[in-house]
Amino acid sequence: MTYSVSQLLKQDLPLQPIEINGWVRTFRANRFIALNDGSTLNNIQCVVDFEQTDAAILKRITTGAAVHIEGELVESQGKGQKVEIKVNSIAILGDSHPDDYPIQPKKHSFEFLRENAHLRTRTNTFSAVMRLRSSLSFAIHKYFNDNGFYHVHTPIITGSDAEGAGEMFRVSNLDAKNPPLNKDGSVNYKEDFFGKETNLTVSGQLEAESYAMSLGKVYTFGPTFRAENSNTSRHLAEFWMIEPEVAFMDLAGNMDLAEAFMKSVLNYVLEHNREDLEFLEQRLLDEEKTKPAADRSEMSLIDKIKFVVDNNFKRVSYTEAIDILKDSKPNKKKKFKYIIEEWGADLQSEHERFLVEKHFKCPVILFDYPANIKAFYMRLNEDGKTVRAMDILFPGIGEMVGGSQREERLEVLKEKMKALDIDEKELWWYLDLRKYGTAVHSGFGLGFERLVMFATGMGNIRDVIPFPRTPQNADF
Amino acid sequence: MTYSVSQLLKQDLPLQPIEINGWVRTFRANRFIALNDGSTLNNIQCVVDFEQTDAAILKRITTGAAVHIEGELVESQGKGQKVEIKVNSIAILGDSHPDDYPIQPKKHSFEFLRENAHLRTRTNTFSAVMRLRSSLSFAIHKYFNDNGFYHVHTPIITGSDAEGAGEMFRVSNLDAKNPPLNKDGSVNYKEDFFGKETNLTVSGQLEAESYAMSLGKVYTFGPTFRAENSNTSRHLAEFWMIEPEVAFMDLAGNMDLAEAFMKSVLNYVLEHNREDLEFLEQRLLDEEKTKPAADRSEMSLIDKIKFVVDNNFKRVSYTEAIDILKDSKPNKKKKFKYIIEEWGADLQSEHERFLVEKHFKCPVILFDYPANIKAFYMRLNEDGKTVRAMDILFPGIGEMVGGSQREERLEVLKEKMKALDIDEKELWWYLDLRKYGTAVHSGFGLGFERLVMFATGMGNIRDVIPFPRTPQNADF
Repeated sequence: MTYSVSQLLKQDLPLQPIEINGWVRTFRANRFIALNDGSTLNNIQCVVDFEQTDAAILKRITTGAAVHIEGELVESQGKGQKVEIKVNSIAILGDSHPDDYPIQPKKHSFEFLRENAHLRTRTNTFSAVMRLRSSLSFAIHKYFNDNGFYHVHTPIITGSDAEGAGEMFRVSNLDAKNPPLNKDGSVNYKEDFFGKETNLTVSGQLEAESYAMSLGKVYTFGPTFRAENSNTSRHLAEFWMIEPEVAFMDLAGNMDLAEAFMKSVLNYVLEHNREDLEFLEQRLLDEEKTKPAADRSEMSLIDKIKFVVDNNFKRVSYTEAIDILKDSKPNKKKKFKYIIEEWGADLQSEHERFLVEKHFKCPVILFDYPANIKAFYMRLNEDGKTVRAMDILFPGIGEMVGGSQREERLEVLKEKMKALDIDEKELWWYLDLRKYGTAVHSGFGLGFERLVMFATGMGNIRDVIPFPRTPQNADF
Repeated sequence: MTYSVSQLLKQDLPLQPIEINGWVRTFRANRFIALNDGSTLNNIQCVVDFEQTDAAILKRITTGAAVHIEGELVESQGKGQKVEIKVNSIAILGDSHPDDYPIQPKKHSFEFLRENAHLRTRTNTFSAVMRLRSSLSFAIHKYFNDNGFYHVHTPIITGSDAEGAGEMFRVSNLDAKNPPLNKDGSVNYKEDFFGKETNLTVSGQLEAESYAMSLGKVYTFGPTFRAENSNTSRHLAEFWMIEPEVAFMDLAGNMDLAEAFMKSVLNYVLEHNREDLEFLEQRLLDEEKTKPAADRSEMSLIDKIKFVVDNNFKRVSYTEAIDILKDSKPNKKKKFKYIIEEWGADLQSEHERFLVEKHFKCPVILFDYPANIKAFYMRLNEDGKTVRAMDILFPGIGEMVGGSQREERLEVLKEKMKALDIDEKELWWYLDLRKYGTAVHSGFGLGFERLVMFATGMGNIRDVIPFPRTPQNADF
């Protein structure tokens, strides 16, 4: 019978004849194959009797080659694993010439591996990262399913540009060079596929709200897009976002949900991805050895995740945060690039990092922001100047979650749209939700890749998504 | 404590004081509110003591209004439910004026509801459909997770147009009216966001293959796009597709996987969505009453799903299928629009329907198609004229799954690409998978909305996705 490496290493199978397929990670002493098939980080050792094996075959057992092995599952002589395979016969399914194969058993730079994104999951690091990404994704679906949420696939192509979360990509199949024009010389999108100008979505929130106002508890988990020329280690043009939206839930409930949710999904990987986490933890320790002691993390990867799972997030109003920042050393000594002088200032990432990493040393939920630095749909507080917004900040990552209670009052919402010059006709359906059976409701957005960065300890967002899309790069 | 309708109706809670939020579905005799909150198809009956309630409030208890109720959970006097709520106080959270509210408690046409897609899940039919859609989505993730597959988020924006599965949408942020031009007058995509021409993906298969060749068993579940002007009840410009891809698996294994997978996810909804299925089954029966007896389904909705779960799919080679079709009555009597004359003909939906609905009367897996009517990446059989392709056809739906064993031999693949004029440079990374450790591998694509149509009995694909995108329509 054919088994996976994971089955052989993790299930206490009886010692027996077995078959296995996989890729050679290393072959040493003409005898020991470290075989991997992606089912686990670990390789199984396959011991070849070189005296009984054709020399021509032995030469083809090279790093990256695909092989089919028939043999016996036996107790391992060496340390580190209980079982190994005594190879009776080996067939080369696909060669991997050592002179050409890019993924040799040595340290490759992440830059090099990004250029070989189609092969990089053949390394331990990227296979661990992508298994963790997959686990986190499942944990998210599981959390919501277990808690009575419905998954809503909100549209990717949108005819609305009212959300204002960022620059959008245009979707069209008009002639690119000679688009049809209106009499006034503008592009005639009536002749485009959808009969109007369309873009890639920046958020499924507004559509998710419409479903929350009927199905009660919903979430989206889909790709979102920003056409912003941000060439940083924290931005992608295409990334995945999770957006729950819940009817009859206020901002306090929203904070409770976000905190319970994040703890649940992180706890899931602690329970299900131990080996991958331990490998990535060690990788991070090795990487940090090259840094000055002051720049190293105070906690190891797994301790950091555990810390989030086990401790309450600190809830701090924007107003309190401003007071803390005004009184802070880096503000007084003018070490911040943007000095905090008064209430109303937009917080920069240096301020968020100070609060999270130096002051509170734990995840922080900032709430009740000034209305004029936040989006039109956020619920205005009774003070008339703040909105029921929240941002969740994580050590080392910064903003992980942004959410709010939504403005449920038709007249207030209309006024805000008017002030921001958002056309009511554009969002007639969104206003309908306030006309017919409106109610308090709230939700948040979580950038999935930020979560994967946190859980894997990877420092560049391009290394936690299979094929990153960034300015000047849409390879593969 | 605040409960959901589902908790009150399904959990055997002690009779106790409770609070609940929801929307009024109906209010009759100034006394009985049918309250729904989306957590289940069913409403809970809330009994108002109209003599103790302000007349101004009573007037505002209208269909669609959002209310907060405090009351007692008591045994129900009426039939059909065990418990009901004796209302102590009711607060109107959001009015819903009966003269304006589009979703009145009467039969609305699906066309009308499509125009009100933001409100249509406030009806029983669409709430049932979307709960089922959500359940199917979870069942899919669960099946793959339980069976050792990793979820891969393949890119949505793609720089490659080699897959050839259909017309693509261009993604750009060049000036739409005056794009920069090259000297030869063509659009200069080097100045576009990604430095090249990019489109929306038609399939994540090729990228999934690269992950299968390292992680072993993977799947995608994401949006895919077709810019085809197909205004039918079976086509969308934006739809969701599931694409598993497995290393070391041949076509027979692929058929086994697809069959086990479909049975598992359909069985999941039989077990978890009984009420919604029963409601949709009855809806379908009512709808079919208006049809001539000959056009009605032989099986009810739930029986149809059970039939798929309990019976083996019939596996039939293309060659056998052609023989059956050639000998069939509609072919001999020239009732088919396209008469089947010889081996090599592409099967039309009339032929597929005959095979599935008249001849075999069960799901059918057709395999080993002529190479020249299938995609370049499919594994050529030893006969040199057929490829290891498979299509799964479902009664009433037609093609549900399309898959194949992939061509793993570098030279054969290169020849096929050359014959079809596909640039090797374009797919250098795809060819790399055959250069380094190539192996037999297979996968398939399943159109998610087709599956939802089958499981809900809905006849128009626009009614099984929240906000459908079709030619001339990208509303909401």
